[in-house]
Amino acid sequence: MAKTNPGRFFEDYSVGQILHHAVPRTVTAGERALYHALYPARHALYSSDAFAQACGLPGSPIDDLAAFHVVFGKTVPDVSLNAVANLGYAEGRWLKPVYAGDTLRSVSEVIGLKENSNGKTGVVYVRTRGLNQRDETVMEYVRWVMVRKRDMDAPAPDTVVPELKKVLAPEDLVVPAGLDFSSYDFALAGEPHRWGDYAVGETIDHVDGVTVEEAEHMLATRLWQNTAKVHFDLTFRPEGRLIYGGHVISMARALSFNGLANAQMIVGLNGGAHANPCFAGDTIKAWSEVLDKAETGVPGVGALRLRLVATKGGAPFDLRDAAGKYQPGVLLDLDYWALMPL
Amino acid sequence: MAKTNPGRFFEDYSVGQILHHAVPRTVTAGERALYHALYPARHALYSSDAFAQACGLPGSPIDDLAAFHVVFGKTVPDVSLNAVANLGYAEGRWLKPVYAGDTLRSVSEVIGLKENSNGKTGVVYVRTRGLNQRDETVMEYVRWVMVRKRDMDAPAPDTVVPELKKVLAPEDLVVPAGLDFSSYDFALAGEPHRWGDYAVGETIDHVDGVTVEEAEHMLATRLWQNTAKVHFDLTFRPEGRLIYGGHVISMARALSFNGLANAQMIVGLNGGAHANPCFAGDTIKAWSEVLDKAETGVPGVGALRLRLVATKGGAPFDLRDAAGKYQPGVLLDLDYWALMPL
Amino acid sequence: MAKTNPGRFFEDYSVGQILHHAVPRTVTAGERALYHALYPARHALYSSDAFAQACGLPGSPIDDLAAFHVVFGKTVPDVSLNAVANLGYAEGRWLKPVYAGDTLRSVSEVIGLKENSNGKTGVVYVRTRGLNQRDETVMEYVRWVMVRKRDMDAPAPDTVVPELKKVLAPEDLVVPAGLDFSSYDFALAGEPHRWGDYAVGETIDHVDGVTVEEAEHMLATRLWQNTAKVHFDLTFRPEGRLIYGGHVISMARALSFNGLANAQMIVGLNGGAHANPCFAGDTIKAWSEVLDKAETGVPGVGALRLRLVATKGGAPFDLRDAAGKYQPGVLLDLDYWALMPL
Repeated sequence: MAKTNPGRFFEDYSVGQILHHAVPRTVTAGERALYHALYPARHALYSSDAFAQACGLPGSPIDDLAAFHVVFGKTVPDVSLNAVANLGYAEGRWLKPVYAGDTLRSVSEVIGLKENSNGKTGVVYVRTRGLNQRDETVMEYVRWVMVRKRDMDAPAPDTVVPELKKVLAPEDLVVPAGLDFSSYDFALAGEPHRWGDYAVGETIDHVDGVTVEEAEHMLATRLWQNTAKVHFDLTFRPEGRLIYGGHVISMARALSFNGLANAQMIVGLNGGAHANPCFAGDTIKAWSEVLDKAETGVPGVGALRLRLVATKGGAPFDLRDAAGKYQPGVLLDLDYWALMPL
Repeated sequence: MAKTNPGRFFEDYSVGQILHHAVPRTVTAGERALYHALYPARHALYSSDAFAQACGLPGSPIDDLAAFHVVFGKTVPDVSLNAVANLGYAEGRWLKPVYAGDTLRSVSEVIGLKENSNGKTGVVYVRTRGLNQRDETVMEYVRWVMVRKRDMDAPAPDTVVPELKKVLAPEDLVVPAGLDFSSYDFALAGEPHRWGDYAVGETIDHVDGVTVEEAEHMLATRLWQNTAKVHFDLTFRPEGRLIYGGHVISMARALSFNGLANAQMIVGLNGGAHANPCFAGDTIKAWSEVLDKAETGVPGVGALRLRLVATKGGAPFDLRDAAGKYQPGVLLDLDYWALMPL
Repeated sequence: MAKTNPGRFFEDYSVGQILHHAVPRTVTAGERALYHALYPARHALYSSDAFAQACGLPGSPIDDLAAFHVVFGKTVPDVSLNAVANLGYAEGRWLKPVYAGDTLRSVSEVIGLKENSNGKTGVVYVRTRGLNQRDETVMEYVRWVMVRKRDMDAPAPDTVVPELKKVLAPEDLVVPAGLDFSSYDFALAGEPHRWGDYAVGETIDHVDGVTVEEAEHMLATRLWQNTAKVHFDLTFRPEGRLIYGGHVISMARALSFNGLANAQMIVGLNGGAHANPCFAGDTIKAWSEVLDKAETGVPGVGALRLRLVATKGGAPFDLRDAAGKYQPGVLLDLDYWALMPL
């Protein structure tokens, strides 16, 4: 009897199936410090307890994307070990900040299945929730991946494609309880620009770049207990380890501090594409576009819908070619909502 | 007067000598997070406070091997600075879990000496104990190393070779106070296999591999305050830094999660050999063999005696050649006891 | 309107100007562990809570240089983004130990300005203070940098060159409240040498070396939230990232344990020069010279004034050539005061 996990194949999923993902994780001040060592993260709410307390929170939370990576990492052995491609994200929401000492686990529900016409692979849609030690959902998101079939002769399941929101509405966003920007210190935060200073359609080149090293992305990916072989084993992929897409997301978000220092909290993930693979030696830069603006109903707290693009070359703001294909230097095209002082 | 430590030479040791090793260390949530960033460690008891509490412990301990590395690291300046080779381990026992906030120090007793026939080196046997801030022994082990003589004309000491157990008996193993697997959650732990599912002689290929980077093993080795030059200084060994053998142990143990997810706690180290050196660029894989099984006297808690082999090439389960010599791809051959739910 | 920070240019500074630097930082056990993973740091007071408590402190502080790096890192976006060179340090004093949980921010005052005769650059002198969450100054130092002018036609300001102490007097040094070396454990600290064992003029070769890796210095520099491009972006400087000078300081100080294990606390920074740039692949070694000795007025606590030299080649103790220029292998020449048991 084989003791090791071969991962699930396409025919192992059924709509409505609940996957209780393994290995809960207590996140601590250690994860927090490592996040700041791995990424040039400077958003003040995640850097300083005193700043977070002045904003009405009990202390500085673990970075929203770190929480996402922990929740996501647990799903890999059950969802994407035999995946060919990570196709998309939707309806991602951060519902409660995560603090040092919280223990996170993940549960997914299969919400859609569609076999591809080649009969060799299919698309699996899962809605994943991250829960803390009080069984509160701290975040949730939908993800769909292309997964191999084990047995090419296995019958195709009924096609179920979930209806997913292209964009979360402002009323879908959850502002953390107690968040209060009325005594927000713009000087300590690093920039004077408030919600009212950003215009829909505005683009920002975040200027700075980081050339990525193998040791760093492996440290990060392991910290989130993401076990996908391609990120670690050079014999598996001698031309270079494929860098975990989440590493690019976090790097780009951190770089976006320069121009978006007050886009403090990520509360919604509308969608995202890993447009091209990233390898060690690539220099990641980032630019943003303001896609929308909304009030949140909470006094003083506005929401910005932002496109965050990570690149490894090419000019800023050059996203797609004439045919609509991502430019070869584009790594990531992410669509998210962030909270900012009005 | 030279202020720097030249290390001890063979003639500086005498049987019965007590070495109080320097630089006590408070381990924290930071060490815990770094351990999980450096190794793909996923054993749930060491990942989640909630899981550990459900198993009767006050919280998630520092990884057993991290405790070992901290205790071991302190002995390097006194035991192995002038060592030619690390020859073996025996009678290693973990006596109390180590928690964030504990301060560890190490004390060794010289228990054996044997000059080699070449008159240039000798074997030193030490029994090392790791103590916490309450002077409780948290672990102990015997290690023997080959050490250079300073003065080739120094007389040989009386030969004393300690009698060491080839294998710890099940009654030698200490089950941590309170450990209770009666409500063990196999789904959260990651695998359904319990003690009864493993058979003596069974072998498990842990499948996954990690290609090692220079920055990572140096971070690890420094964290344990192991100061041996060969791990850090390329001018000392331009063909590549020799990777600390403990880094290989921890990497292999973490990889063994895939097939041994429920072998939660390491409680005994029967022996171990660093069969071949490991360098950056090597891809570490691991396989295990079940050597023995025992009950512990604690309800619900079984013990597995496991051989853990780390490789950098070659086929799984191919340990030695016809002449009994380790295959060139074998890095580590470790013999240990772990606790698993019955 | 550009949202990103272009940094200040020479004509943006005026004497008396106060710069409130952004992004306060709560330092934790995570920073502490990372510091010990990044540098071979072994001074017992910073390694063990129990050792620090035996010396009269509430626990083991964050390393003095880590506190310096955090305070320094915050000044980079306001002081040295457009700097051509970091010219010097003076009057650096550590006033209160920093503990896990403390939140640090930085404030600088411009205390001098001098345009260079070429009309393209000028020297800016700032006195920077690091403050904790209780608004207590934990450290302060003067630094001067050469900064570009934005507009070559901007008029030169009145020249103000502050009078700075070449060396802090012993009475300028602040011994932390409660520090008591009367039950200092030299065995646990790692060396028997006390203040009385060091002579002015004595030199110590610290023997050990570390070959530096890209991933490591970037982790360190990011952890201190130092955003200077040259440390991260290989497209900006394809011949190799320039390593943050503070990384060299911390590496050399950690190496100096071997011979100065009892020089526990750094309390004064008299001056320092980054003599040559450091790149990945360089092997850092260190040597020290005892420049002066003083009593502190606190029973049992002595002060040593030390020159700490980091090298990447060349013989120990060979600092300058016949013309008085630093040897090409010299990376750092630092002049500091440390506290040691009498």
